[in-house]
Amino acid sequence: MGHGGGGRLMRELITELVVPKLGHQKNVLHDAALLYTPGPQLAFSTDSYVVRPLFFPGGDIGRLAVYGSVNDLAMAGARPLALSLSLIIEEGLEVDCLARVIDSVGEACRGIGVEVITGDTKVVERGKGDGLFINSTAIGVVEHPLNISPSAIRPGDAVIVSGDLGRHGLAVLSARAELGLRSPIESDLACLLEPVMELLAAGVELHCLRDLTRGGLASASDEIARSGQCTLQLEQQRIPVHPSVNAACEVLGLDPIAMANEGRMLVICPAEQVGLALTVLRRYQPEAARVGKVGERWADGSSLDVRYPVSLISELGVNCPVVLAEGEQIPRIC
Amino acid sequence: MGHGGGGRLMRELITELVVPKLGHQKNVLHDAALLYTPGPQLAFSTDSYVVRPLFFPGGDIGRLAVYGSVNDLAMAGARPLALSLSLIIEEGLEVDCLARVIDSVGEACRGIGVEVITGDTKVVERGKGDGLFINSTAIGVVEHPLNISPSAIRPGDAVIVSGDLGRHGLAVLSARAELGLRSPIESDLACLLEPVMELLAAGVELHCLRDLTRGGLASASDEIARSGQCTLQLEQQRIPVHPSVNAACEVLGLDPIAMANEGRMLVICPAEQVGLALTVLRRYQPEAARVGKVGERWADGSSLDVRYPVSLISELGVNCPVVLAEGEQIPRIC
Repeated sequence: MGHGGGGRLMRELITELVVPKLGHQKNVLHDAALLYTPGPQLAFSTDSYVVRPLFFPGGDIGRLAVYGSVNDLAMAGARPLALSLSLIIEEGLEVDCLARVIDSVGEACRGIGVEVITGDTKVVERGKGDGLFINSTAIGVVEHPLNISPSAIRPGDAVIVSGDLGRHGLAVLSARAELGLRSPIESDLACLLEPVMELLAAGVELHCLRDLTRGGLASASDEIARSGQCTLQLEQQRIPVHPSVNAACEVLGLDPIAMANEGRMLVICPAEQVGLALTVLRRYQPEAARVGKVGERWADGSSLDVRYPVSLISELGVNCPVVLAEGEQIPRIC
Repeated sequence: MGHGGGGRLMRELITELVVPKLGHQKNVLHDAALLYTPGPQLAFSTDSYVVRPLFFPGGDIGRLAVYGSVNDLAMAGARPLALSLSLIIEEGLEVDCLARVIDSVGEACRGIGVEVITGDTKVVERGKGDGLFINSTAIGVVEHPLNISPSAIRPGDAVIVSGDLGRHGLAVLSARAELGLRSPIESDLACLLEPVMELLAAGVELHCLRDLTRGGLASASDEIARSGQCTLQLEQQRIPVHPSVNAACEVLGLDPIAMANEGRMLVICPAEQVGLALTVLRRYQPEAARVGKVGERWADGSSLDVRYPVSLISELGVNCPVVLAEGEQIPRIC
């Protein structure tokens, strides 16, 4: 508890453990950090991470906190300028464990070329937290002229996913319980900034991007369809899911399209640019695929069933509504 | 737990409870929110709030989260452009309680003229959190030419506090335990943006600003002295502390200068501008006072005792080093 009080112990924790691992931020101990933006249009995104356990196959909460918030910016086509990092530590967390997480944050930041420039540390009593919660918030700059948002989707647009689905949820689950999986499934945790920047550089007219985190493809499609006031039609057999993920989901009664991912996104662009977009995306994930299209636009008083704006054509050709689950199939995956 | 999963329950929680209370943020459901900055120099600050209890005399965690992060920006002389708000909710928190906190966030934002434009909600199992933790992160713009930082302090500068000290820590403590105080002490929780903007407008050449949160005046002075490589000399009898705060601290064995505040700041400016600065500050808090001065600058190999760069001249004229406590006297006050 002493490390959370703003006294000598906290100063030592921050100056000896956190700052050296994150680089040379001169401003990091000051209340607010200063930075310059090269352009006036900013993007801003926040996420708190409560993933359990802190380390899972293919990643950990530190890397997740960096990629997660940078991915949110990338979904607006924004390049990150700076990150903040705020730790809520439960009393009793091993300093060594914290050090590993901070190492991971630093490594992820260096990989992207972004810095944590401001931070905060709080400590709560044993039993009032769960090891470690992290908030990371990102500022980015938007340097393209596009309107990348659900409001830009148009009937006929192609719906693409950037890789195979369902890995992250299963990886976290397998870290919690002995699932007896024959081959361990690693999280798909990845930074989506570079593929997005490449899509923009290649001239793909991006209409909408969405990372497929909590609620997976099902939740993201539903949200975009509602905001964009269009239906979305997905085709089951085009949705890439690794056989081992599929098998595990079947046994566990989970639905891969509603499973969380941390390195996959939905890309909606004009149908005529599918080839170009897939060429770019497959450099990062060979499984990237067109999985459906934007259907009709609904008007006020429309006869469309707007309770279920997303439909899934099954492998047998049956058209089923995608019913959004009440919550995530697996809690605390991010 | 269902409300944390990214499914229908979460969408309902956010669209029905959170968004209406915070205004008309069209972007709030999208991954990243967009905004424009009127200038290229930005300030960025983050804080997680774990105050216990959530409601205390004179404030609550919602108002604290808004003022706390805006105050951090104000300490760089920055005007807030936007806030993010991230909630970590413990399963079982009353929806009504959450609604009151969000109301308070909305009210505080409207008072300042700033908006929450992006957010996040996570839910953790009962016993893995403590009701509610909030992270708020703020982006601001710096529109003055000053270097407001410890590196700008100079020997002879005046050290001012903007009001009486110690209220917040005691208010939180009294909300936890029946202290039997004759008159209830309210937190000093307040937004410091306006007084800072007024100081700048009045032409006060601000060298350093620091809000006196965790660790209070003692911790803030110590940090500034170390960063600014100068000693600081405080005079006990000039430090404003309300008699009831003083009395309570004496009984409880607490030190008012190390107590947390949430609406008080240290202002360091040229000695010849003390009158001007106090005229501005006393419009907000009549107790604002000059409490000391910046002493000598220390050089490498200096004979100064840099273990204790801050000294306090007691009411009897004795010069004592200010020894920074290991931690906060009262945990979880913010």
